[in-house]
Amino acid sequence: MNFGIIIKVLGSLLLFKAVALLPSLGISIYMGESDTSAFLHSILLLLAFGVPMFKRKVSSRRIRPKEALMIVSFGWILASVFGALPFVLSGSIPSFIDAFFETVSGLTTTGATIIDNIEVLPKGILFWRSFTHWIGGMGILVLTVAILPMIGVGGFQIFKAESPGPISDKLVPRIKDTAKILYTAYLAITILEVVFLMFGGLNLYEALIHTFGTVGTGGFSTKNNSIAAFNSSYIETVIAIFMIASGVNFALYYDAYKRRWRDIFSNSELKLYLTIVAASIIFITLNLNGRLYSSLMETFRHVLFQVGSIITTTGYSTVDYDQWTTFSKAILFILMFVGGCAGSTAGAIKNIRLLVLFKMIKREFGKIMHPRAVIPVNIQGKTLSGDVVANITSFFFLYVLVFIVGTLLISLEGIGLVSAASSVAATLGNIGPGFDFVGPTRTYSLFSVPSKLLLSLLMLLGRLELFSLLILMTPNFWRQEM
Amino acid sequence: MNFGIIIKVLGSLLLFKAVALLPSLGISIYMGESDTSAFLHSILLLLAFGVPMFKRKVSSRRIRPKEALMIVSFGWILASVFGALPFVLSGSIPSFIDAFFETVSGLTTTGATIIDNIEVLPKGILFWRSFTHWIGGMGILVLTVAILPMIGVGGFQIFKAESPGPISDKLVPRIKDTAKILYTAYLAITILEVVFLMFGGLNLYEALIHTFGTVGTGGFSTKNNSIAAFNSSYIETVIAIFMIASGVNFALYYDAYKRRWRDIFSNSELKLYLTIVAASIIFITLNLNGRLYSSLMETFRHVLFQVGSIITTTGYSTVDYDQWTTFSKAILFILMFVGGCAGSTAGAIKNIRLLVLFKMIKREFGKIMHPRAVIPVNIQGKTLSGDVVANITSFFFLYVLVFIVGTLLISLEGIGLVSAASSVAATLGNIGPGFDFVGPTRTYSLFSVPSKLLLSLLMLLGRLELFSLLILMTPNFWRQEM
Repeated sequence: MNFGIIIKVLGSLLLFKAVALLPSLGISIYMGESDTSAFLHSILLLLAFGVPMFKRKVSSRRIRPKEALMIVSFGWILASVFGALPFVLSGSIPSFIDAFFETVSGLTTTGATIIDNIEVLPKGILFWRSFTHWIGGMGILVLTVAILPMIGVGGFQIFKAESPGPISDKLVPRIKDTAKILYTAYLAITILEVVFLMFGGLNLYEALIHTFGTVGTGGFSTKNNSIAAFNSSYIETVIAIFMIASGVNFALYYDAYKRRWRDIFSNSELKLYLTIVAASIIFITLNLNGRLYSSLMETFRHVLFQVGSIITTTGYSTVDYDQWTTFSKAILFILMFVGGCAGSTAGAIKNIRLLVLFKMIKREFGKIMHPRAVIPVNIQGKTLSGDVVANITSFFFLYVLVFIVGTLLISLEGIGLVSAASSVAATLGNIGPGFDFVGPTRTYSLFSVPSKLLLSLLMLLGRLELFSLLILMTPNFWRQEM
Repeated sequence: MNFGIIIKVLGSLLLFKAVALLPSLGISIYMGESDTSAFLHSILLLLAFGVPMFKRKVSSRRIRPKEALMIVSFGWILASVFGALPFVLSGSIPSFIDAFFETVSGLTTTGATIIDNIEVLPKGILFWRSFTHWIGGMGILVLTVAILPMIGVGGFQIFKAESPGPISDKLVPRIKDTAKILYTAYLAITILEVVFLMFGGLNLYEALIHTFGTVGTGGFSTKNNSIAAFNSSYIETVIAIFMIASGVNFALYYDAYKRRWRDIFSNSELKLYLTIVAASIIFITLNLNGRLYSSLMETFRHVLFQVGSIITTTGYSTVDYDQWTTFSKAILFILMFVGGCAGSTAGAIKNIRLLVLFKMIKREFGKIMHPRAVIPVNIQGKTLSGDVVANITSFFFLYVLVFIVGTLLISLEGIGLVSAASSVAATLGNIGPGFDFVGPTRTYSLFSVPSKLLLSLLMLLGRLELFSLLILMTPNFWRQEM
């Protein structure tokens, strides 16, 4: 194991974190609030650790899969530990465990919070809290599309330039270029949403915060009542549309920029995603119509928002969906597992994997009809390798397993089964709010310390596509050379 | 499609049903109860339909996969329709839908009931109700081990004599012999349990009824309070042990008879099954100790019974486990999906499939460590083919899908999510009772007619290993020649 390079890269990450704190520091100074020294001390601590780590001399700059796995996993954990400092040092979140939970939730773009009253916190702290969504989102884009496929983790080998995957040929095959494309799309959508929100009357600060929460599919707000606080159907609709847009593979926006419309319209993951969104909206609207809201239009608006929020794993809310019927809540619960498209900032299982699983079932039916036929699994006319298919089916089972084990452990809190299961689904899928005990009007503050740590782990597991973090917990990883 | 042979075989099934009604008729005559004519009329109706169908002249006796699929699916449905006659004609269950639900539940060895007061029904009717478990169990053994693998349905191709599966070489490779071995084991266990129960004070009638419910892993009783009614720790323990024994691959009892102990001890599905049983008992006992029951021993006894009842998909109860903690109930909920071993009468996903899925996850970790290695999935030292692995992973996803769609539809009843989800898990997995609305002290009587039909369909789907019944619902099945 080349520990030198691991430490060096993690050092550069800490330096990046120090830079990332500057906007929040600026806001704090500008507002003249009490949190200024907390940001200064956090930056100094990041430099104190980051500079020597980054300056470390290394004999080899080679990063093999094993080193990459450690950088990815420890990087995310380290960023959360140091990112929690401003919350603790400013006294906004006195408990370090709580601050760690909140930062993991921010960086993994989950949006689960332990803060019961957000509105009393200083503006700089709230900006930092939401900014973690935005930088977390940036990290995720490159992680899932560029880094993880290289080390064979996640089902996104289909993106890999070397493999005959369906989407690879659309992306410039080098990581740097890939990152550039994704970041440009990310930035463009960010600017666009800020403009739209400011047009609706939000000031730059509020517009930025809620844009971070949207494009990062995070869900942190500055309001205790989330988006409902604005009481504006324009703001709600803008955020709903940008949420759903942020659940789409960002590479498709590059295609749109290049006017490759045929590639977009033939994208089968996008089709599945939009079909699930549309079907969920239709079913829930019909189910709720005449029950809770004054008109079909109002019902539709709230359903559009909540469906968009949950399937993209954002977690904003405009109504207390915990009051909905069992049928409608059950659909939301299922969407917690679906998630957005690969190559977006959304979490959970993701549509590309579900698409492959649907095709596998179809193939089984075909095999019964034609026992001797060899039927491949095709995505957009290209055959997936057996390795990719096995990885996706294993991921699905592992996701269910982690969900089950997590639910069992959280149920020891003595809360109901729906509360326990939805808190695990909402953290593992990086959504944020769940049902009942963790419903949209509640927070995660009442969980015990062990449960908060477990839920933080689940957020990290979900975000790092399970395998990359779990393999570090196997004895084989530490025993064998790769 | 060779409809002639399909009708002929279904006719023979009806004749078999007529014979199967004779013991119940005998009891009815002996007891001098009001249900005698109901049995006589049912037998006459079965003969009226069965004889001409069976006597039908066929040009070809060839049964291809397509015909086999239709025989299996329609056979089970037809047997349920005719099996419901005695309930309706005797007035015991006035509604035909209810009687159909009860018979499907019996023949699929589910044990879900719509009868709120069992104890007032005539003895002949109750005998028939439980006897459906026993003949259903016989059907299942041959279906899953001999018929389904031949037509490529279910994950049990590993049993197939022609394939290099792990268990095939233990079974005499011809279907008739396979059936003979399984039925001998089935009969031996039946006789053994009857003797043990009679030794505990039950009369032959009660002993038979509860043995049918146990070895068929069904769960119908003659008591409203299920096994709790006997208030005997001896009876409870005997039934608990026989339930767990009935969740084991029956071919292993043949191995035991042949003294092939090494084969039994090295059986990895058995190991997984017993590990899950033991772990569940330990965790729940520790969790409940000091809470609900007077001593650790009493807690253990109830936990042993309930765990054995749920994992084997039997559904008997000695306590109202709905009063247990969320943690303990969550374990039972998970066991509803686990089920017993392949080659038993138990339903649900079954341990052999879970074993393969666990091995697939292990293989993914191995692939990250050794990206270039080709790692096979082995069960007991033998490599599974890609086809079998794909079938098992597809089955798992399909099972989850059917569970989700079923839960969505049942949630339209306006019951809670746990009630809806557990009623679907309990019918799809052929267990019987679930939680809350369908808890062990409740029945399925309050569901609407569409829901009762849906739950009946779920019982059949689960029992016929999903694919065989679902493929009949695809247009391709009716369009193409096989």
